[in-house]
Amino acid sequence: MASPENVKILFEPEAKKVQTPKGTTIFQAAKDAGVDIRSECGGKGLCGKCRIIVKKSKDVSELTEPERKHLSKFEIDEGYRLACQARALKDTVVVIPPESSSEFRKIQITGKERLLEPKPIVKKFFVVLPKPTLSDIRPDYERLLDALLQVDKFGHLEIDYDVLKGLSDTIRRLNFKISITVWDGRKIIAVEPGDTSNELFGFAVDIGTSKIVGYLVDLATGKTLDMESLENPQLAHGEDIITRITFAMADPKNLKTLQTLVIEAINKIINEACERTKIDPNKIYEVVVVGNTAMHHLFLGIQPKYMALSPFTPAIKTQLNVKAGELNIGISPSGIITALPVIAGFVGADAVADALATGICESSNISILIDIGTNTEIFIGNSEDMLSCACASGPAFEGFHIKHGMKAVTGAIEKIRMDSSFEVEYETIGHGKPAGLCGSAIIDMVAEMVKHKIIDQSGRINRDIKTPRLRDSNGELEFVIAWGKETKTRKEITITQKDIREIQLAKAAIYTGCAILMKRKKLKEKDITKLFIAGAFGNYINPENAKIIGLIPDVPTEKVEFVGNTAIIGAKMTLISNEARKKADTISKKVRYLELAADPSFKKEFLEATLIPHQNLNRFPSVRRILRSA
Amino acid sequence: MASPENVKILFEPEAKKVQTPKGTTIFQAAKDAGVDIRSECGGKGLCGKCRIIVKKSKDVSELTEPERKHLSKFEIDEGYRLACQARALKDTVVVIPPESSSEFRKIQITGKERLLEPKPIVKKFFVVLPKPTLSDIRPDYERLLDALLQVDKFGHLEIDYDVLKGLSDTIRRLNFKISITVWDGRKIIAVEPGDTSNELFGFAVDIGTSKIVGYLVDLATGKTLDMESLENPQLAHGEDIITRITFAMADPKNLKTLQTLVIEAINKIINEACERTKIDPNKIYEVVVVGNTAMHHLFLGIQPKYMALSPFTPAIKTQLNVKAGELNIGISPSGIITALPVIAGFVGADAVADALATGICESSNISILIDIGTNTEIFIGNSEDMLSCACASGPAFEGFHIKHGMKAVTGAIEKIRMDSSFEVEYETIGHGKPAGLCGSAIIDMVAEMVKHKIIDQSGRINRDIKTPRLRDSNGELEFVIAWGKETKTRKEITITQKDIREIQLAKAAIYTGCAILMKRKKLKEKDITKLFIAGAFGNYINPENAKIIGLIPDVPTEKVEFVGNTAIIGAKMTLISNEARKKADTISKKVRYLELAADPSFKKEFLEATLIPHQNLNRFPSVRRILRSA
Repeated sequence: MASPENVKILFEPEAKKVQTPKGTTIFQAAKDAGVDIRSECGGKGLCGKCRIIVKKSKDVSELTEPERKHLSKFEIDEGYRLACQARALKDTVVVIPPESSSEFRKIQITGKERLLEPKPIVKKFFVVLPKPTLSDIRPDYERLLDALLQVDKFGHLEIDYDVLKGLSDTIRRLNFKISITVWDGRKIIAVEPGDTSNELFGFAVDIGTSKIVGYLVDLATGKTLDMESLENPQLAHGEDIITRITFAMADPKNLKTLQTLVIEAINKIINEACERTKIDPNKIYEVVVVGNTAMHHLFLGIQPKYMALSPFTPAIKTQLNVKAGELNIGISPSGIITALPVIAGFVGADAVADALATGICESSNISILIDIGTNTEIFIGNSEDMLSCACASGPAFEGFHIKHGMKAVTGAIEKIRMDSSFEVEYETIGHGKPAGLCGSAIIDMVAEMVKHKIIDQSGRINRDIKTPRLRDSNGELEFVIAWGKETKTRKEITITQKDIREIQLAKAAIYTGCAILMKRKKLKEKDITKLFIAGAFGNYINPENAKIIGLIPDVPTEKVEFVGNTAIIGAKMTLISNEARKKADTISKKVRYLELAADPSFKKEFLEATLIPHQNLNRFPSVRRILRSA
Repeated sequence: MASPENVKILFEPEAKKVQTPKGTTIFQAAKDAGVDIRSECGGKGLCGKCRIIVKKSKDVSELTEPERKHLSKFEIDEGYRLACQARALKDTVVVIPPESSSEFRKIQITGKERLLEPKPIVKKFFVVLPKPTLSDIRPDYERLLDALLQVDKFGHLEIDYDVLKGLSDTIRRLNFKISITVWDGRKIIAVEPGDTSNELFGFAVDIGTSKIVGYLVDLATGKTLDMESLENPQLAHGEDIITRITFAMADPKNLKTLQTLVIEAINKIINEACERTKIDPNKIYEVVVVGNTAMHHLFLGIQPKYMALSPFTPAIKTQLNVKAGELNIGISPSGIITALPVIAGFVGADAVADALATGICESSNISILIDIGTNTEIFIGNSEDMLSCACASGPAFEGFHIKHGMKAVTGAIEKIRMDSSFEVEYETIGHGKPAGLCGSAIIDMVAEMVKHKIIDQSGRINRDIKTPRLRDSNGELEFVIAWGKETKTRKEITITQKDIREIQLAKAAIYTGCAILMKRKKLKEKDITKLFIAGAFGNYINPENAKIIGLIPDVPTEKVEFVGNTAIIGAKMTLISNEARKKADTISKKVRYLELAADPSFKKEFLEATLIPHQNLNRFPSVRRILRSA
């Protein structure tokens, strides 16, 4: 009897390998390899949670019915499979997307929340209509309006045409008892038989270039009932905004593809949140969407090409309200999809939401707000005047283009300290063995290397440093942070000279934005009352180290506050408060935008900022003290 | 050689017969028979105008490509063919619909028009946008808004989502020169490249139970550029409203069928008017639709079933504005379809338009307005208070259920006089040989028979009258109006005892409505300043004769005015004047509705009114005088 044929499977991003009999499910193989995959049904094809990506479809068995049920056409095209259904037929590489990791940390999807009295734009009323008689022949709609006017004040009310079409039957289904949902005090968007007035939900969505985050919100209480996130499936068509716009420009079909991908992802997030909370998606009446301007346009199916061409004008900045059915968003069919307003081509609705959530436009004190991402938005000013700009900082802080970079998920090193003997201490998300470096660790590491003079102001690694951690790898210097024996992957985790160059460019882009805005506003570091850092990885940055590498202006550490994903928080605020929504409109209208590249000092500022912390140490007096004392 | 096989063709409604070789086109056969069929291409299958209805599809050859092109699926199901394509294979009956008759008279589709300064709700502006630069990075939409605000005043403006999606490309197509169409000062419904500001059209539609009439209107000048009418294709599903509602109730698919039929017919009317005038349908930005409440609901796809059940409540009475694309109306895709408001289940938007066109609700004088149709609407009152009702008068005055009845088209007798020797003089529409009787002729004939005592007050024909014209036909008495040698059909045209009974019921229904409204308003005939008669056949009624048969209250003849199809005129008025549209809303809100059947005196009034002119001759003093002097 021949022994069964074996195949090798490599699991990414943890780089775990396993050898298993041909025909084993990926789910079983992952278990054997100690790779953690989310599942609620235990591998029976029922829950659809064990989603994986197979790089070559021919390496595994054919698609099964459960997979066709749980995965969209677009996902299937991208290589998504269910681990419990796909069986390994050849040696293969399997990617575990973050949402399929059961330890997947939610840090990136929460943010600092301001308490707000819930006064949502969507209201729901239960009324009992008097029945028509020969002496009361009011039509159904006017009968409904009269009853509605007895419970609340309204101006001119209109009714969604699709709701109207079914109205006569609906009101008679439960004996003239109905629940009416009114949007913005002016449009009836749902009429349901019976009393469903306690089921009033909304959804907030932040469409990030790389991640889509959603909050399911109880509009009556303002409570977030569930949160969910997914990779932006548009990533398959380009990591950054410009690549995706170029793709969208090439063919109107491509624009439709990108729109469909993001809408499918949003529907998936909504459905997952609703399944977990046992809430009927038809009881969600509004979705507020934020995102950078390119994501905003692509979501709405608006051609974004002119945003990519000078002078980079978007099609619209005003708040938009579109019927859910028109966008195929799976909530109450006549519900409203609200795209919050944007400021400019590269300062989007997510930035408006940041400003709203932090309250910077309402305070008389001068604040700086930096939302760090692939595209970083910066605000400076106060309630009197606010100036904004966008910096092409790139995805380095999200772990891209860094040799051992990864996102801030389980297994990522998030904090690093070094002693004078160049020994390294680190902390890992989930406290297990490390698998790579997330953004905060990269900042820490560069700062420690500066403090211990492993790199000089130009960022060059000093090859004379005596430590086995400094080594040459294929002609490039790198510094070992974790030895192979310590890591999940059993390979060393290092930072390379190239990684440091990437960080220098990224941090220079952000600092240049801050510096030019401060100059334009004639403000110095001492004028700054508060420096907010928002973004996916913000909570875990060491502010001292951020200053040491020259990422942020040199303001006292106690003035730096990490606020997390304020984009989704701002979106949620506008969902539960009409007042907040008006503030968002005001922010979009009043905040000025500066095109950084058009500033005459841009090139010089940028070059000076690529040094660590900066060519001009006078700008970083606290860092100069640290370097001198080191 | 065998002689070719011949087939017989009977052409309706003229009842002309012809014998022709098998395989001849219906078009050629009609020519041979002297039956007139419209054609622009001379029978080449190009123009699609020679539409006919073949009662049995197997009598003629199979459908050809030109027919599939020019006829809708629904029409084909109804037996529509092109005369130049269909070849006779068997003896057959062919119906020439009115729109295919080249002499087709338009009398039914015009009405008395009040002059109105055109101030349409749709406006169009040509603007040249400043091009974006690095120092003027306003988004496209806000750039457009700013330019628009320089040419006119607007409050809060929004843009149709579909228009927005293409906006950036549109404004760049002709170098930032664009024409913007704004609806109701609040919504941008079209943006076109270049200057098209002189192309601003609207369409008014009256959906009658049996006929759909459309006006193509230049909104800038208020001029009617073209008019067109078609049979309401819903006729295939019932001649009257109740039959159609019953059909719609049976299955949601049926409601959709009725809606699709009427929308296809409207699109056909629009296309024909646009083809004739060489106007691009995309330059039509609004369609105002009127119709009775059942037609209104069916057009909008609203279930009308509760209108057919006591207490007969419609779903809505308020004016509705729906996007053209949502209803598949073939005008500018984001154009607006406006359904004017209704008053009650059986006093519809057509009646609102009647009231608007005649101005009865604006005058301090007391008027009566009677819009005669299958369903007759009556108004009485003035600007202070107006009362309305509906009467089920049936289609007798439109020629239905009358032995030789026909519509007021070419060949119909429209006027009749009789002398003391019972000799008959008549006038025919088109001045050719007569083919039947239209409504006005039927009224004349009954009145003449009353005056010459051929019938008594009860409507019974006096069989003792000595004239060869009075004869027995299969046990029923009938009176010959035209002898066979005089007519197109070569058959006698008569009025039968049964015809007279039909007329008695129809006129009693109308008079009862007038009488009960007058009683409710405590008004007498002397209080009436004006009696307007509207409706398809109104222009040709002899008012003396209408009084003699007791169709209308006995007011002086000089106070009676025939106003024709005021429904379409009222619709047109709201298309070209925002002020008129507001008046229509006011009429819908303020005019009271009386449910006739619920009036305690209804049965008694109706029975008395079935007599000619009425059981109580005191109500008809002028008729009493005529009868005495006769």
